[in-house]
Amino acid sequence: MGQLHLLSPLGFRAAGIYAGIKSRHLPDIGLLVCQTRATAAAVFTTNKVFAAPVKVGREHIADGRLRAVVVNSGNANACTGRQGEKDAHRMCEIAADAVGCLRGEVLPSSTGVIGHHLPMEKVGRGIAEAAQYLGDSLEHALLFSDAILTTDTKRKTAAAQFKVGREKVTLAGVCKGSGMIGPRMVLPAATKGGRKSKKPLHATMLAYLTTDAKVPAAMLRKFMGAACDASFNAVTIDDHMSTNDTAALLASGLGAAIDSTKARDSFARALDEVCQSLAYQIAADGEGATKVVVVRVKGAASDAAAKAMARAIANSPLVKCAMHGNDPNWGRIVSAAGLANVPFDPNRSSLNLQRTVVFRNGQPVEFDRAKVSESLNSPQVQVELSCGMSCHQATVWTCDLSKDYVTINADYHT
Amino acid sequence: MGQLHLLSPLGFRAAGIYAGIKSRHLPDIGLLVCQTRATAAAVFTTNKVFAAPVKVGREHIADGRLRAVVVNSGNANACTGRQGEKDAHRMCEIAADAVGCLRGEVLPSSTGVIGHHLPMEKVGRGIAEAAQYLGDSLEHALLFSDAILTTDTKRKTAAAQFKVGREKVTLAGVCKGSGMIGPRMVLPAATKGGRKSKKPLHATMLAYLTTDAKVPAAMLRKFMGAACDASFNAVTIDDHMSTNDTAALLASGLGAAIDSTKARDSFARALDEVCQSLAYQIAADGEGATKVVVVRVKGAASDAAAKAMARAIANSPLVKCAMHGNDPNWGRIVSAAGLANVPFDPNRSSLNLQRTVVFRNGQPVEFDRAKVSESLNSPQVQVELSCGMSCHQATVWTCDLSKDYVTINADYHT
Repeated sequence: MGQLHLLSPLGFRAAGIYAGIKSRHLPDIGLLVCQTRATAAAVFTTNKVFAAPVKVGREHIADGRLRAVVVNSGNANACTGRQGEKDAHRMCEIAADAVGCLRGEVLPSSTGVIGHHLPMEKVGRGIAEAAQYLGDSLEHALLFSDAILTTDTKRKTAAAQFKVGREKVTLAGVCKGSGMIGPRMVLPAATKGGRKSKKPLHATMLAYLTTDAKVPAAMLRKFMGAACDASFNAVTIDDHMSTNDTAALLASGLGAAIDSTKARDSFARALDEVCQSLAYQIAADGEGATKVVVVRVKGAASDAAAKAMARAIANSPLVKCAMHGNDPNWGRIVSAAGLANVPFDPNRSSLNLQRTVVFRNGQPVEFDRAKVSESLNSPQVQVELSCGMSCHQATVWTCDLSKDYVTINADYHT
Repeated sequence: MGQLHLLSPLGFRAAGIYAGIKSRHLPDIGLLVCQTRATAAAVFTTNKVFAAPVKVGREHIADGRLRAVVVNSGNANACTGRQGEKDAHRMCEIAADAVGCLRGEVLPSSTGVIGHHLPMEKVGRGIAEAAQYLGDSLEHALLFSDAILTTDTKRKTAAAQFKVGREKVTLAGVCKGSGMIGPRMVLPAATKGGRKSKKPLHATMLAYLTTDAKVPAAMLRKFMGAACDASFNAVTIDDHMSTNDTAALLASGLGAAIDSTKARDSFARALDEVCQSLAYQIAADGEGATKVVVVRVKGAASDAAAKAMARAIANSPLVKCAMHGNDPNWGRIVSAAGLANVPFDPNRSSLNLQRTVVFRNGQPVEFDRAKVSESLNSPQVQVELSCGMSCHQATVWTCDLSKDYVTINADYHT
């Protein structure tokens, strides 16, 4: 029993190869193939400016079935007009031909710079080549996960297992995301097998999940919507929702059927665990980040109010800089909650930084600043605001704002 | 005829002195006094966490009359509970005693660090001392304007004159603001002389304006609401609305009456000119800023949609870093407009950077990147998005995001 990875669930093969799209010699074409017609669910960006592969992906996922995912990094195929759509369709077509399925059974994704047409000759050759190298080993999983990275400094992978009766079910995933992270992804309308859902979710990144569980597409959509909302859509690096955000889950159906309440609970838990691990890894690898900041708002008037306050805190450059400098400047945190334009009464609220109370019932609390500052010098910082209004809560993951963020994003690179 | 300044309008005197509240030896108590019972209007932060002086100021402005403004810098008197309110009242009381008016005729303001009680002994002595040094010279105006500064690197002043018949009317102002700038200020409810207004405005700063025009309080409120909306509430440095935002206009009534359509138009124009000049100076002096970025959105479906898109562009750290690096990375700008969650069709839109078209009708446009990059290396950058939907537009001023912003805000200083 080795390490679990994206290809541990039964029925999946993958490859990642270098096709010359990225300027550095790193994998930039990824192909993930399921040997069955997997049931599938995916959420996509809600940005009004969405990339061509998002448009095509929404169409292809509509019947809740996929055979393959084809991804390129280094070029987002966004703001590329009709040619961009043709190119996204062509990516699916080439992948379908290479692996032996229909074009409509392929989900396309792209990530990278906006506003450039895909170098289709390289992309086409790359997809065909990737199809030659498909396999289900750890190495294949890693090459695929490398092929989706851009400014990421680390691979992001997670997996979980649980049992349904005597059968083992495996769920695994990989993702990318480091900048342009502030996702608000939703399920597209389903045409068959699923009900229409307009529930908005939040996340900026690419994520691909595999499982060998046997799950109907409609149920998969429901699970995926909820899991993304509590994970990818709760991460923000720069609150800049991307044009390409996509998270997809494919279920090969070669393992146990998820057909009891207990199995459904186990599946939902495993999916939450994998998605939240991946989301946390995105925050930890935020551009220029030196730490993860976990913002928890409790006792808010509603879930939406809790989330709005948590996001306002997590997105404030003043809060993020204070966290970078290990500065227990709690006034910035409380005032950020106050600007979220939701019910909030500072006189009933208290704030904890790394478990030290620094503010209670509208008033400052004496605390040892040097000690709290030292406690903030940690790879993970807990910020907890209790609002004393009701029982609703939300957690948002972010990172600090460092000079490296500016270096990474101010350099000329279009 | 010398340079116009805050005390050029007839009827005003001011002072700025050092009382020991700031750590550096710079003016930190300001007093502005009108020899008449001025008609007055003020807008305040809409942050749910508002400072004690904002609470007291809303009460004192309610009847549309003021005799004085008292300000301290170095301490925001925010998140300070009941003691904070008592202190804000006490500031008014001391000022009223010193200049010979009622406590309720004084508008108090504070700016600086959040969560510390005011050093009332120093504040009290400072106000009394300032009252001794009141005068109407340029030097007095400058000392007052210095007394309201915190992380600002420059004084911010503006003035305008116009004629009503043969009479000259003068309007002038000073302001402060460099960080925690993303104001959304509104007029408080009026109890007398003015109608209730709930129109939300946007801006994070302190601004004080004087005029010798004779304007009824209700009309002043109307002028002030509109002028702030198109100026202070259209500036964002970090989108972090402050707890203390306040902008007040006092009219001594010693000059011409604003009682004709022409005079009202002239007054509104002069007020817009002064407020917009001050707002622009705030953007230019944003923490760590090297340039002003003027974001104009045209052809939007509504004024609110135009403003939402302009703010989304202006607040994106990715856009701000690109501007800092003179990077014509227009994909970040177009995608920021798309995340504003308002009607927007990239296929009908075009984007100009410093008058060069870089994106049109959903497609990239070929342009000379080196040349556009060089044009971005300027103290003022124009970003203009045309949406092709309707005739609505908005302009928002911001600045670039530099490493100095991180240095200024990551240092331990609570």
